Amino acid sequence: MISKNRIRFIHALSQKKQRIENNRFIIEGEKMVNEAILWIPSYIETIYATSEFEITSENPTIVTEEISVKELKEISTLTTPNKALAVCRIPDNNPIDSPLIICLDGVQDPGNMGTILRLADWFGIKDVVCSKNTVDCYNPKVLQATMGAIFRVNVHYEDLTEFLSTTELPVFGALLDGENIFENKYERKGILVLGNEGNGISEEIKKYVQKAITIPRFGEAESLNVATAGAIILGAFYR
Amino acid sequence: MISKNRIRFIHALSQKKQRIENNRFIIEGEKMVNEAILWIPSYIETIYATSEFEITSENPTIVTEEISVKELKEISTLTTPNKALAVCRIPDNNPIDSPLIICLDGVQDPGNMGTILRLADWFGIKDVVCSKNTVDCYNPKVLQATMGAIFRVNVHYEDLTEFLSTTELPVFGALLDGENIFENKYERKGILVLGNEGNGISEEIKKYVQKAITIPRFGEAESLNVATAGAIILGAFYR
Repeated sequence: MISKNRIRFIHALSQKKQRIENNRFIIEGEKMVNEAILWIPSYIETIYATSEFEITSENPTIVTEEISVKELKEISTLTTPNKALAVCRIPDNNPIDSPLIICLDGVQDPGNMGTILRLADWFGIKDVVCSKNTVDCYNPKVLQATMGAIFRVNVHYEDLTEFLSTTELPVFGALLDGENIFENKYERKGILVLGNEGNGISEEIKKYVQKAITIPRFGEAESLNVATAGAIILGAFYR
Repeated sequence: MISKNRIRFIHALSQKKQRIENNRFIIEGEKMVNEAILWIPSYIETIYATSEFEITSENPTIVTEEISVKELKEISTLTTPNKALAVCRIPDNNPIDSPLIICLDGVQDPGNMGTILRLADWFGIKDVVCSKNTVDCYNPKVLQATMGAIFRVNVHYEDLTEFLSTTELPVFGALLDGENIFENKYERKGILVLGNEGNGISEEIKKYVQKAITIPRFGEAESLNVATAGAIILGAFYR
């Protein structure tokens, strides 16, 4: 039985402001909750699960509170809740130290953000550094799109001009007039800046881009989705 | 002034069944409507636009009906309608004749579908062949995600087993145990099969895959989003 107060608290965590104030976020669904048990067990505060929930990654320190399907519906942000919801503390970040870093300058769409984190996780990129106006990585829609990558990739929100002006890594930017990525070889070292969905990389941040790179176009589309552009460029870095 | 009947008709077109029965679909927003005027003018039936709508591509045969912001809200599927909505006839498809074709086997998410069409358009791929259980390309969310690619890429819904068993093109499939795409060179010729978000390529369709190809993994993510996987593979075909 979940108290009214607790339900209110969980609902409040769908807002960024409340997540920051309370240093908590929620994850949903059997798969995501199991990933959290596996990867960030010490940050899990409470798991609420129906009797159907199966823990795949055993951890004796984790206690789950059984709730009814109706109660899960009450606390969930999903239209079709899936067996479990967990309240977690926001994990502490390790310092930025990857040789290859993705930098997001104002990415707004939660699906794009989550997909980019999943992509980073696939390629073993440990750090994603975001401008402060990039969508919050603990937004429920971002979390769903990460498919668990959020537990393995460190997401940092930084003043990008400061970060880029002090780094010793080469800074690459996906721009329209850069060098053809299919005709060049890249080391897996540097910072790849990806910009906002509508406006690309901001004027302020463009100044720090040392190597403008471009995906050559063979058809008519004006631009690519930011996550697919990032995917093609990372493909060029890892080939 | 739009009649009640017409409003009902426009609303109905958000359902696939109604779109097929009436051979009509709707597009929304200033940019998309302008793209339609540019690329499929003869298929536009009516444009409803507020006084703020600016036509960027002049076409003397196109007539727009001015409506109020309130009326646009009434007919729109968007929470924030954007200046215009057009009712169009579904364009006739050209026969499939591209040397490189994307084939979708049960892709469900409208955002993924739209992003893949945009990607096809970027690389100049003219034909995307879909299984009948793939999401409808005239779904409003698919259309938004295509950013206009829907007007330049031919989307075909076919019996995939029939299509794949009669093609003379080599059939590539994104599978987990295929050859490493970063270590091989590809001609821009063949059919690239991409599978469903949760289950990948179906068992039935796997039989037709002649070349299993794989994006090597360097990190921990279990899988990639289907649109980003497609993007990385196409990058390997176009480098």
